[in-house]
Amino acid sequence: MMNNLTPLEPKADKATVRRHNLSLVLRAVHDAGEATRAGVATHVGLTRAAVSSLVEQLLEYGVVSEWGKTSSGQAGRPGTVLKVSRSGPAGLGVEINIDYIAVCVVDLAGTDRVRLVEHVDNRGVEPSEVLACAARLAARAIGSAADQELEPAGVHVALPGLVTGGTVRQAPNLGWRRVAVEGLFAQALLALRPDHRPLPVSSDNEANAAALAELWFGAGTEGVRSFLYLTGEIGVGGALVLGGELLRGAHGFAGEIGHTVVDPEGPRCRCGAHGCLEQYAGQAALLTAAGIDADAGARGVAELERRARQGDPSALSAVERAGRQLGVVLSGAVNLFDPEAVMLGGVYRELMDWLAPAVDRELARRVVSGLWSEDGKRLRAASPLGDAARGAAGAIVREVLADPTAYAERDAG
Amino acid sequence: MMNNLTPLEPKADKATVRRHNLSLVLRAVHDAGEATRAGVATHVGLTRAAVSSLVEQLLEYGVVSEWGKTSSGQAGRPGTVLKVSRSGPAGLGVEINIDYIAVCVVDLAGTDRVRLVEHVDNRGVEPSEVLACAARLAARAIGSAADQELEPAGVHVALPGLVTGGTVRQAPNLGWRRVAVEGLFAQALLALRPDHRPLPVSSDNEANAAALAELWFGAGTEGVRSFLYLTGEIGVGGALVLGGELLRGAHGFAGEIGHTVVDPEGPRCRCGAHGCLEQYAGQAALLTAAGIDADAGARGVAELERRARQGDPSALSAVERAGRQLGVVLSGAVNLFDPEAVMLGGVYRELMDWLAPAVDRELARRVVSGLWSEDGKRLRAASPLGDAARGAAGAIVREVLADPTAYAERDAG
Repeated sequence: MMNNLTPLEPKADKATVRRHNLSLVLRAVHDAGEATRAGVATHVGLTRAAVSSLVEQLLEYGVVSEWGKTSSGQAGRPGTVLKVSRSGPAGLGVEINIDYIAVCVVDLAGTDRVRLVEHVDNRGVEPSEVLACAARLAARAIGSAADQELEPAGVHVALPGLVTGGTVRQAPNLGWRRVAVEGLFAQALLALRPDHRPLPVSSDNEANAAALAELWFGAGTEGVRSFLYLTGEIGVGGALVLGGELLRGAHGFAGEIGHTVVDPEGPRCRCGAHGCLEQYAGQAALLTAAGIDADAGARGVAELERRARQGDPSALSAVERAGRQLGVVLSGAVNLFDPEAVMLGGVYRELMDWLAPAVDRELARRVVSGLWSEDGKRLRAASPLGDAARGAAGAIVREVLADPTAYAERDAG
Repeated sequence: MMNNLTPLEPKADKATVRRHNLSLVLRAVHDAGEATRAGVATHVGLTRAAVSSLVEQLLEYGVVSEWGKTSSGQAGRPGTVLKVSRSGPAGLGVEINIDYIAVCVVDLAGTDRVRLVEHVDNRGVEPSEVLACAARLAARAIGSAADQELEPAGVHVALPGLVTGGTVRQAPNLGWRRVAVEGLFAQALLALRPDHRPLPVSSDNEANAAALAELWFGAGTEGVRSFLYLTGEIGVGGALVLGGELLRGAHGFAGEIGHTVVDPEGPRCRCGAHGCLEQYAGQAALLTAAGIDADAGARGVAELERRARQGDPSALSAVERAGRQLGVVLSGAVNLFDPEAVMLGGVYRELMDWLAPAVDRELARRVVSGLWSEDGKRLRAASPLGDAARGAAGAIVREVLADPTAYAERDAG
């Protein structure tokens, strides 16, 4: 407020106002699921005539469709039902992780329409090779989307590392340093589809994308606008959502909870430091502690879950120990940020039944406000819908919703 | 952006627009230090006539004063110089800490006009007694302010505890639980000044107030809009400023970095948990480790500084050890939050020369982006102007700047 030096009623030019209002109407239809022109007008505070003109434009852009009449419209007259289009523009998300690549196409309504996952070990593989593999998967997804009359408006690539300005600064578990991921991926995709217009490529950290998926699509965050998201994979990723916005930090590197120090003299972490949380509660540490091959990947996690379910003592104690460490580190983060909820994703979601009691116990003990236990169920499993590929696809969808004109102009160009 | 469902050009009513624009003009004058009507008009994007009318009102409110003519005005004509008033409304800040109470009156320009500090041991003393003592000090400050033709527009009380909704939920080092601090303080002040209009009382956590003082008045944060603030007192307080805004958290309890776990099995902390940072790097731990009486307060800290300056090995190793622990905890916070800078206040400021190398070393080692050492001097001593009493007074000043009409109406009422 103090820094807002704009007088009220700025004289924005007409094109800017129209562009803004097109997004306003589109988002109103999107958020309502279905709506009439009259309903939208009431909701957004514009005249019926203005809304009708905006809706015509959105129909032309192909981002809104008409779906017959309502049975009982406002003011006695039935209205035409509007929904966001189930065909046309979509988001394409690509998640490159340590032991898999996932690709997802999401339509404007937020529905998952294509999903492909390939289990591969990306450790020590050349970045260009990994990105070529991801591009192949993406090209297949674009094909499947076309069969459903969907056309990605862009690709968003999520990776487990520090991502900024189109570049992976470092991704310790992949072994990447300074990789121009957007350029290389665009190149690889273009090589596979030489006759197609190049798709805009953007990128982000994988935990950020997963946290946004949780915010946009997850059931666990219903009504929750500020939460800490923790995802257990080979690395331990994190993200903070504050008032419905992802906290990015001064350099875009916020959320790296996996490198919180558990023991300054502890085992060396891939990041170069010693005793990071990842070395105590990452997937490899969990599997090793339970006597399962640390490199067994998804099979190993399934085996750990099976053993925990059967009450195997070494599996239970491995999970409990990781839970304790997670709880200690999370208590520090909760004391610092005071979020409404903590969401656990990745392998932690699968192990929630055995992990949560230990995590919760440390939080109840160590969160200073004493509010942790008072305040209802604040430790939650992330939604299975809240994965990074879906969040990445969602980021493209949000772009179209935020400025449908930019999408239409690019599509026409 | 996605959640902004307001169409552009809202038809705000005239009174609201005028109220908003009065603040706009007042803040423009405040931020510039001095300005002409023409200069303000250019800066805020309103017409010269509109600004003149707004300035008349601000002169009437007594929040702006005229200071003669500029030698060379815009458009060839000399303009009248405007400044915020050096008399009239002011902010009154009260800091209640463990071993002292400080009171401060700040004028609209942000200048410290009255400052009183009383060294008292508040541990184990009844809250009503402590608040009565603080009210006596505040009443004296109000008297000194009146001698300078300043009248506090409100009182803001800062305390080392979890403060929300006018109540201290808990302040472990004071031994307070559920104290209605605003009501009790207002009562105590009214008892001392029965013939005066009651002042509005507000309250906040002490580290929050200090961090805001740093943001508003400190030199160390010049150009820095996102920082982590850590203050060493008997407790260790913290606050996060993000893009020029204090992060309050879901319940108002964000920033409690003093209760980050250093060792889960460590000594019991006053908060009830074990092994909190406060037990390793708080004032008492520092003094004890250096062989100085833990209860010696400010005298003890001065003695520790003197010994460190003389190269006393046990003083140096005590400070170095605390610095290491601070660095380990801060690296976790920096990894999570990715701030531009970390500011150390309280006793850490005094000990900066001997503390900073150890803190910096751990940060360079453990901040994952590798950006810590690359990115210039990110660990800084808080400004001596950045104390909690000043920040508390500043909060009142900001309120007047944000809505001078509310102040004038209350003053007239």
